[in-house]
Amino acid sequence: MEEYLYRLDFQVRDYEIDMQGIVNNSIYQNYLEHTRHEFLKEHGIDFAAYTKGQINLVVVRVEIDYKFPLQSGDRFWIGLNMFKESRLRFAFLQDIYLLPDDKPVLKAKVTGTSLNPNGRPAVSPELEQAFAKLDLQK
Amino acid sequence: MEEYLYRLDFQVRDYEIDMQGIVNNSIYQNYLEHTRHEFLKEHGIDFAAYTKGQINLVVVRVEIDYKFPLQSGDRFWIGLNMFKESRLRFAFLQDIYLLPDDKPVLKAKVTGTSLNPNGRPAVSPELEQAFAKLDLQK
Amino acid sequence: MEEYLYRLDFQVRDYEIDMQGIVNNSIYQNYLEHTRHEFLKEHGIDFAAYTKGQINLVVVRVEIDYKFPLQSGDRFWIGLNMFKESRLRFAFLQDIYLLPDDKPVLKAKVTGTSLNPNGRPAVSPELEQAFAKLDLQK
Amino acid sequence: MEEYLYRLDFQVRDYEIDMQGIVNNSIYQNYLEHTRHEFLKEHGIDFAAYTKGQINLVVVRVEIDYKFPLQSGDRFWIGLNMFKESRLRFAFLQDIYLLPDDKPVLKAKVTGTSLNPNGRPAVSPELEQAFAKLDLQK
Repeated sequence: MEEYLYRLDFQVRDYEIDMQGIVNNSIYQNYLEHTRHEFLKEHGIDFAAYTKGQINLVVVRVEIDYKFPLQSGDRFWIGLNMFKESRLRFAFLQDIYLLPDDKPVLKAKVTGTSLNPNGRPAVSPELEQAFAKLDLQK
Repeated sequence: MEEYLYRLDFQVRDYEIDMQGIVNNSIYQNYLEHTRHEFLKEHGIDFAAYTKGQINLVVVRVEIDYKFPLQSGDRFWIGLNMFKESRLRFAFLQDIYLLPDDKPVLKAKVTGTSLNPNGRPAVSPELEQAFAKLDLQK
Repeated sequence: MEEYLYRLDFQVRDYEIDMQGIVNNSIYQNYLEHTRHEFLKEHGIDFAAYTKGQINLVVVRVEIDYKFPLQSGDRFWIGLNMFKESRLRFAFLQDIYLLPDDKPVLKAKVTGTSLNPNGRPAVSPELEQAFAKLDLQK
Repeated sequence: MEEYLYRLDFQVRDYEIDMQGIVNNSIYQNYLEHTRHEFLKEHGIDFAAYTKGQINLVVVRVEIDYKFPLQSGDRFWIGLNMFKESRLRFAFLQDIYLLPDDKPVLKAKVTGTSLNPNGRPAVSPELEQAFAKLDLQK
């Protein structure tokens, strides 16, 4: 088991289940997004406030390996690590584990950037500082 | 404030927010469904297990009054009451309150029935017993 | 069959199907919303543009009767009528029919209002005009 | 512009838009899934029928590059190519283009397999035949 900067616990809800009786593939992106936003908020970066201030944090690439499907009622957790990939890009490694045995469910890498009010990739000084506090050097 | 048989706590997730910056109208039905299923499971009625056994619990009518919109990060709770409306129909009264001040967000009445494997409305003896334990007489 | 002011055709997509093998209850609100927005746009009321202009068209009440469930691949259409319910409220009657036999699937009444940039119910002159062109007197 | 085996046209619906005023990242997986299922159905592989027959077509890996965001009302199309990646894996290349100028929106590679009723990866003879007709050798 890897070490994670952040962990968030979840439970599957029945409306997330599709006709195969498992959580639909797209729903995992919801889980991953919620985890990133909660993590960022805990470190002073409020996605909704940034959006209102016309700084848009956006995803530019997603890689997801689906290993084992979640089912109705399953409890699970998401572990998150973050690092700077380049001057303008940051990456989240996010893994899902089924409780209580921590069976691997999904591994994802989500790469994002920040767009300024003109829509150009630009990490604001404020965001730079928040990331610096996170000490995201790998 | 009314008394409720059951309460479930939630937090808004950012993917539930629409372009108006508030939780999209349809999402509240997800919250309400999850609350009903959790309540029923606690009383021995597992929606997913019933579905696998070809007993389908279905909604036949929904009435929702939207009073105040939920926003990013809001914490809220849903109170639930249930009663038998007729031999074949049961109703859930479900109200949403914003935390920490219990501001009313939404009031709903959701009416359901049970379909047997032939698709006919029919409350199985097992389901009848579970409801009886719930003492759902109004 | 009633007469409708507007009709929009749809096809069920598999990600809208839940564990019961039918379209999840909340998804119908998506279909209904999309139909209202397309209808309004055709009459000069662009929901997204209004939102950007801080005029928020919001739903205050929904009543939905679920009559027959939609399944994978089903083609269906939604008929819409609209009328003014009061000075500040307008109502949409929206019915869903399964193709090719127009089997009734769902009947809904959705009541809305318009909020001005201060969040107060207020129908702007521009909106009043658009509604007048629609000749929404019952 | 690449050549595609299959093309499906779409229009953004307002409930798919998130607080940033663009289609939420997870929604694109819905678009992609719907396109794959329509393509497969046209070639005799009905996802829902397979699911009922306990043959589950599942996604094992997704790679998505987000290039330009879709907004309210946007019309777009998805081009799809498919090839066999190995004896048990098939891959879909799916690209989204904004209409009317075919501006690139998203590029995705989705890898899937087929699970037999015991949950083991296994391509049934029937599925093998359907794929053979598709002539999926690259």
